[in-house]
Amino acid sequence: MRAAIELAVENVRAGRGGPFAAVVVRDGRIIAEGTNTVTSSCDPTAHAEINAVRNACRELADYQLHECDIYTTCEPCPMCLGALYWARPRRVYYAATRDDAATAGFDDAFIYEEILRACEQRRLPMQQLLRDEAQASFEAWTAKPDRVEY
Amino acid sequence: MRAAIELAVENVRAGRGGPFAAVVVRDGRIIAEGTNTVTSSCDPTAHAEINAVRNACRELADYQLHECDIYTTCEPCPMCLGALYWARPRRVYYAATRDDAATAGFDDAFIYEEILRACEQRRLPMQQLLRDEAQASFEAWTAKPDRVEY
Repeated sequence: MRAAIELAVENVRAGRGGPFAAVVVRDGRIIAEGTNTVTSSCDPTAHAEINAVRNACRELADYQLHECDIYTTCEPCPMCLGALYWARPRRVYYAATRDDAATAGFDDAFIYEEILRACEQRRLPMQQLLRDEAQASFEAWTAKPDRVEY
Repeated sequence: MRAAIELAVENVRAGRGGPFAAVVVRDGRIIAEGTNTVTSSCDPTAHAEINAVRNACRELADYQLHECDIYTTCEPCPMCLGALYWARPRRVYYAATRDDAATAGFDDAFIYEEILRACEQRRLPMQQLLRDEAQASFEAWTAKPDRVEY
């Protein structure tokens, strides 16, 4: 975690993005790092954990991180928590909280509140349409004998 | 939305990943597309919406999608919903639901349930450590006069 905190501080100093970093550890060794590069890479999904997961998966040539632990300098935002579920690491360690992030001006706590709300009560307008027609893609999926599940 | 559904079906047929696609529209024109490429790109974060947001941001050279609408073939999973909040589009349209996705074998509904739980009750073990030391990165952030906020 101390290595991640050092990376986060360095990330701010270098002007690469927000004050966040994460490292992925496997067999006691850091196999990948990630820092927040939202503004420098023009990518709102380029949070520390997402970048670390992507780098670790590239390193392992796998889309799962079963034997890995992730150390992140801040409680993951909903996007990153979702990404961690999809990556399926063994364990996640975090340091600062979503409220620490909110105090520093980041939307983490706000997005947690929004996700708990029903669609129609959210600040981001969402509308459903063509649900029936969209089943075609699931039908193609379940009918495909050589589909690769994840 | 019909363009997105067609992309999702084609994505399955081509074996690139799960049965999901999204398009980003600005001024009545599709400016970017994204399909699920989790398995083919070895990237658990490569969901349709994440790929579409990344492609649209690259197209616009911006980390925000203020004037854009996003059409996605399925209700966004928590990771993608979080990504949409960070990207700040004008409006999101979706077709299938998280339960449709669950029926086809995807974890979307499960992850929504998990995110609602307190950390210590989640299936993914999470543990906090070194909260105090991690404040160093936020202190560096707030002390940086030329920080680029997002």
